[in-house]
Amino acid sequence: MFGVTCQAQENLWWKTPTVSPEINSDKTVTFRMKAPKAIKVQVTGDFLPANGDKPGVAELQEKDNGIWEYTTPTPLLPELYSYSFIVDGLKTTDPSNVYLTRDVVTTSNIFLVDGPQSNLYAVNKVPHGTVSKVWFNCKTTGNDRRLTVYTPAGYEKGKDKYPVLYLLHGMGGDEEAWITLGRVAQIMDNLIAQGKVKPMIVVMPNGNVDQQAAAGYAPTGFITPTIELPHTMDGTYETSFPEIVKFIDETYRTNAKKSARAIAGLSMGGFHSMHISKENPDMFNYVGLFSASARFTGRTESPIYQNCEEKIKKQFAQKPALYWIAIGKDDFLYKENKSFRDFLDKNKLKYTYLETADGHIWRNWRTYLCEFSQLLFK
Amino acid sequence: MFGVTCQAQENLWWKTPTVSPEINSDKTVTFRMKAPKAIKVQVTGDFLPANGDKPGVAELQEKDNGIWEYTTPTPLLPELYSYSFIVDGLKTTDPSNVYLTRDVVTTSNIFLVDGPQSNLYAVNKVPHGTVSKVWFNCKTTGNDRRLTVYTPAGYEKGKDKYPVLYLLHGMGGDEEAWITLGRVAQIMDNLIAQGKVKPMIVVMPNGNVDQQAAAGYAPTGFITPTIELPHTMDGTYETSFPEIVKFIDETYRTNAKKSARAIAGLSMGGFHSMHISKENPDMFNYVGLFSASARFTGRTESPIYQNCEEKIKKQFAQKPALYWIAIGKDDFLYKENKSFRDFLDKNKLKYTYLETADGHIWRNWRTYLCEFSQLLFK
Repeated sequence: MFGVTCQAQENLWWKTPTVSPEINSDKTVTFRMKAPKAIKVQVTGDFLPANGDKPGVAELQEKDNGIWEYTTPTPLLPELYSYSFIVDGLKTTDPSNVYLTRDVVTTSNIFLVDGPQSNLYAVNKVPHGTVSKVWFNCKTTGNDRRLTVYTPAGYEKGKDKYPVLYLLHGMGGDEEAWITLGRVAQIMDNLIAQGKVKPMIVVMPNGNVDQQAAAGYAPTGFITPTIELPHTMDGTYETSFPEIVKFIDETYRTNAKKSARAIAGLSMGGFHSMHISKENPDMFNYVGLFSASARFTGRTESPIYQNCEEKIKKQFAQKPALYWIAIGKDDFLYKENKSFRDFLDKNKLKYTYLETADGHIWRNWRTYLCEFSQLLFK
Repeated sequence: MFGVTCQAQENLWWKTPTVSPEINSDKTVTFRMKAPKAIKVQVTGDFLPANGDKPGVAELQEKDNGIWEYTTPTPLLPELYSYSFIVDGLKTTDPSNVYLTRDVVTTSNIFLVDGPQSNLYAVNKVPHGTVSKVWFNCKTTGNDRRLTVYTPAGYEKGKDKYPVLYLLHGMGGDEEAWITLGRVAQIMDNLIAQGKVKPMIVVMPNGNVDQQAAAGYAPTGFITPTIELPHTMDGTYETSFPEIVKFIDETYRTNAKKSARAIAGLSMGGFHSMHISKENPDMFNYVGLFSASARFTGRTESPIYQNCEEKIKKQFAQKPALYWIAIGKDDFLYKENKSFRDFLDKNKLKYTYLETADGHIWRNWRTYLCEFSQLLFK
């Protein structure tokens, strides 16, 4: 048992062998890794130009003491970037950067190059809201399900009732996706402090009906599920959604009216937002489709996916304050969005449209959240 | 930009190449890793017998398709274990197990072998409490500081006032340590459901005065801080502590009395618990020192560390309901604890003592929390 003790004591040494990444004063970025036995050390990430359909890769050079180093040849534009190292072909995280984010099954490090937009993703000297992991008992699925809830600074001590934004993740995501990769708490803290966004509650449920919670927080344990196709886009989640709204209205000081409710989601979460809002035309006054899978057909013949055109016309007849659609020019769902917009145009159903560069990436979804949230509850 | 788009789309593929770790029906455990280019793949972790003062290491064998594999020769005892892979000398996490925990700067995977005690660390079919990350403005340190708060199932919808356990981390830890490695939410959910622990709020502050929050959640950004010596055990945190109690009493439905307050901590957190409780003899009715640094001297000449013997006598004169000390036989702080117990014995100051096997390890601290929490508020 002596060995176990010493092993634990080693962990008290909290100094890593090198600093990485280092954001230099000219906004170039230096990556370093101690790997004395390695033959080849590379870095890959969305800060590098892509190589055809593959992510860019750059080689680190070995310096003294087995420390490998790479500095970007030019300054990086302000943004939140993800990266990983590749040591002799094996992808690994940066041991000098203990903050990790997970995108489905890929764990990466992130870093921030400061600028007016990316500064919204940083923890700044502003009042901070609370981020809670909450469970609710869902009758539709017959089990307990985990939600992430952001309440704005001042919620606990005040008496105000707040509007609510329901914010839905994409396929492969879960209740952790928006709060980590989407930087929801930082974006809300910063935009509320700047007076650009109304203080609101943001609810981020788990949209995979097979999962009670993200890996590590579910009764199924710690191991990554190897699910062939998630049990989703089959109507169940959409059917259960009013239960989530009811739970939130019973649990938090919400303004429990259509005028104070928004729903938005990315990719599959956009699909869910479209169907949930059309099934409940009296529930949401604001709808946001971010790079949405904007199709009327699900994976089943669920009643949710029947008579969609008629239901959407009925939803618009009740005049939602905002129906907002955003997508990048390179998104693989661009064509699907175009068809949906054609349907809306043909029927003179009024929506707001934002077209950006790039594709189906978190950089866009963070930007869309910043834009959309400023239009809510005003 | 096409490349970036495709990179993101690859992430939609959420199936990892293999299952690892696999807990077999006979409680042996199989580890697998896909590493076709590797020359040597090893696994290290606290499930292996230690090799002198080094953690144990076992070699995986290459099977088909570049998948390496190792099965423990014998069943493992029920416990929560940590492990990492070592590929050609480089430590890395298990890509098939997306749930990661961080111990200071070391990120590891965990797995659970089920049994009566370790089952308390699992997410079971019981009502779940809420885990919140909350910020409070600390006048002593002049900044906003982040806390983890567990509220028991039923808190949100009820009207009851709850007792509070303040639970402090060790050196190198932060407000994330107890909730991840300490499995606080799971332990509390399970023991409360079994009727063995009174429903209580558990508050886990950040005890490093240099840090506003854990890496990734602080204004200092994502990179691991390279602090030579943390600004702690200098009296500042102890001085600031009544502010934390005040904040919690103002923010949550607490039973704001000495009879409904406990404080406990591991290692440096035990040191803090001893000093904070003696400085505030009317504040805490229950005190727990888990593998504590049980010394009267801090790193400064702060008034907190003056006249300790007299102050502790005064604290005991006010008859705390419980003063609980636990340590493992192999702990490097065993001797320091013995001296402290000698002082208590000599002065006939009554405490409860638990001596266990092993040393300064999370396995012990989880057990101590299970034992201590069952003695509170009864």
